[in-house]
Amino acid sequence: MRIIDIIEKKRDKFELTKEEIDFFVQGYTKGEIPDYQMSALLMAIYFNGMTNEETVNLTMSMAHSGDILDLNRIDGVKVDKHSTGGVGDKTTLIVAPIAACCGVKIAKMSGRGLGFSGGTIDKLESFEGINLRPDVEDFIKQVNDIGIAVIAQTGDLAPADKKIYALRDITGTVANKSLIASSIMSKKIAAGCDKIVLDVKVGSGAFMRTIDEARELAKIMSDIGKGVGREVVCLLTNMDEPLGINVGNILEVKEAMEVLKGIGPSDITEVSIQLAANIVSIGLGIEYDKAIDMVEKVIEDGSAFEKFRQMIEREGGETKYFDDMDLFAESKYKVNVLAPRDGYIKSIKTNEIGRASMILGAGRETKEDDIDFTAGIQIFKKTSQQVQEGDTICTIHTNNEDAIKQATEIILNAYEFTDELVDKPVLIYDIVR
Amino acid sequence: MRIIDIIEKKRDKFELTKEEIDFFVQGYTKGEIPDYQMSALLMAIYFNGMTNEETVNLTMSMAHSGDILDLNRIDGVKVDKHSTGGVGDKTTLIVAPIAACCGVKIAKMSGRGLGFSGGTIDKLESFEGINLRPDVEDFIKQVNDIGIAVIAQTGDLAPADKKIYALRDITGTVANKSLIASSIMSKKIAAGCDKIVLDVKVGSGAFMRTIDEARELAKIMSDIGKGVGREVVCLLTNMDEPLGINVGNILEVKEAMEVLKGIGPSDITEVSIQLAANIVSIGLGIEYDKAIDMVEKVIEDGSAFEKFRQMIEREGGETKYFDDMDLFAESKYKVNVLAPRDGYIKSIKTNEIGRASMILGAGRETKEDDIDFTAGIQIFKKTSQQVQEGDTICTIHTNNEDAIKQATEIILNAYEFTDELVDKPVLIYDIVR
Repeated sequence: MRIIDIIEKKRDKFELTKEEIDFFVQGYTKGEIPDYQMSALLMAIYFNGMTNEETVNLTMSMAHSGDILDLNRIDGVKVDKHSTGGVGDKTTLIVAPIAACCGVKIAKMSGRGLGFSGGTIDKLESFEGINLRPDVEDFIKQVNDIGIAVIAQTGDLAPADKKIYALRDITGTVANKSLIASSIMSKKIAAGCDKIVLDVKVGSGAFMRTIDEARELAKIMSDIGKGVGREVVCLLTNMDEPLGINVGNILEVKEAMEVLKGIGPSDITEVSIQLAANIVSIGLGIEYDKAIDMVEKVIEDGSAFEKFRQMIEREGGETKYFDDMDLFAESKYKVNVLAPRDGYIKSIKTNEIGRASMILGAGRETKEDDIDFTAGIQIFKKTSQQVQEGDTICTIHTNNEDAIKQATEIILNAYEFTDELVDKPVLIYDIVR
Repeated sequence: MRIIDIIEKKRDKFELTKEEIDFFVQGYTKGEIPDYQMSALLMAIYFNGMTNEETVNLTMSMAHSGDILDLNRIDGVKVDKHSTGGVGDKTTLIVAPIAACCGVKIAKMSGRGLGFSGGTIDKLESFEGINLRPDVEDFIKQVNDIGIAVIAQTGDLAPADKKIYALRDITGTVANKSLIASSIMSKKIAAGCDKIVLDVKVGSGAFMRTIDEARELAKIMSDIGKGVGREVVCLLTNMDEPLGINVGNILEVKEAMEVLKGIGPSDITEVSIQLAANIVSIGLGIEYDKAIDMVEKVIEDGSAFEKFRQMIEREGGETKYFDDMDLFAESKYKVNVLAPRDGYIKSIKTNEIGRASMILGAGRETKEDDIDFTAGIQIFKKTSQQVQEGDTICTIHTNNEDAIKQATEIILNAYEFTDELVDKPVLIYDIVR
């Protein structure tokens, strides 16, 4: 078998066999196939796509390129959750404790962020002292003991995906549905979970710009799940504006704690409840309405908030913040961004808010960049809301004085105002099983 | 400027600016842009193509990536000739001496071959002692003295094209018309000629399988010529069967000498006369009919044959063969391939004949392979000819006994026979200016 023949076959729109897919995944992971041939193949896949069968084979080939986590020693059904990523998306910090409270086992590995704001792991590192790299034995024991562990992804899971994703990122071959779906699913399958709830973001702050695109991606992932015997539920949720009010690492942790206390913003609360209810429903095999009741109860009675504290404590993080959120560090500079006119907010270019947040220090431009945990943006006025000239629409948080002017301009350009009434955005577009 | 933005721009079907094209050509040549980003860009170009303006800019950027040969010290109009390559194509050896005899200055750099049979340089090395790497001063002096020099391409001409072509060859991105056209034209422009006659091969032994494809490629190259002020004439010629009878290095040199003596096969003679007449016509600025007369005269009076001898002598090659072609070395094994049935020859899979020739030793599979100058195939029966079972259709020449069986099978599979009368193939489909 020769890689050049595989490149030309895909370039000429033929379907690749399982053997051919294994050949290039294994060959590339071992370093036998050079980057320049892999990137040409990825660009050919970008243009010609992959069939369902090819996508399943790619997923499984990447999943088997390294360790497959054996979670059999955890009693109960392990449900994993993954979001395709957006601005202000702190739902993992909320739904994981909720689901664990309801009896679903959460044994979750998360990633760091690049661009926008940090990833879940970066957000958790807002708690000083936390150790997100336990060994597998401790990880399993923690889940058996308290029902929940969210830790950093180990290096041995789906190394093929890691290497291929890094190449896609610098060769313009990220935005292909089969490649996105197989990347997500290979990691989830290697991570050993039984069932998976996926949050596919749609809109100006997401990879998927339209509902149709997102539905197609969700369908591919659901099909992969069926192909490998793992139940998958995909929620298509709105990312046409940031989720919740807070964007940034500590800022998002605080908002997650507020939601768990039942005092968070309504949009992030609603999306979190529905995500959590889906996890509980498939995890326990119960009716969705019953799952909703359980989820609302563990928020109301404070047990979900306590579960979050318990996890942070078990992972070695500072827990004083659970008693007083004001103890979290804050940025030196807090600057309000004011509405430039009267009117209704028509739209917010969400990826621009993400970019502003990154410039303020909340995200990384390159892997080597340090994150400023306190930096970020609070978005007080969102789509459909009425404002008067001079109202505070956002507050910038940063320690980098030089970034304030640029971030302010980006935020102002991200907002579009109108004199007409604007409908409230839909939060959840669809659920694909 | 970032290469990732250029990749995504081309991927998304936008037109690249001159500055963007210069950026990636120069960056890649200098090693600042890695292979894996260049190959992704090339695959995106493969799928989305390039506009005329992009193609002209790519051509000029590659032409200016190294030295531009200054041929101003050669008096008269310098016309270059290039063939897109085929099996049995020895026309350079024929038309260059003819055109030089007619007063056109031939200062030509040629390449080696990969696959099929050798290139012009390999064929010229059939003459022991020949030095095809003179310095530029000697090259210019030779053309001023005797009107003709065919030498090996120097390393400094269009290095960008050399590097990009090598990458295309191993990433499935060769077969794109803009990339092919700019590769050819960049080398020709860097080689300093005034006008260019191109022989675009069409058929089963060529990159271009259909006349429409070939016409499109010819049009692109002609447009590049217009864009940079160099007159270009493209002949579209038949490569649905090998050109002439002989395929291989010494075999092709012998056939070229026969054509120059006026005793060559009719197809290669006809194509050579038309190519030469086009060179003479644009080189001297005379009517095509008059050019034909001149070309036929220098064959008839033996002066073209003598010009070829003069060039070989000047370049240090052994010339005894011009007095007695039988002095050329011959292969140890000569094996006839016999017609398996009565009938007419319907078609010959020309690239398969090329492959058989390579297996016999006439071509290289990798750059490091040595060529057997005596090896090759003589194709005695060609399309439309009638044969009886047992007639010799080809003769195999090789020093590698082990290759005979495989080559024979390939040749027999390359031939298609029929009971119906078959039209004689057209030799020249069109001329594009």
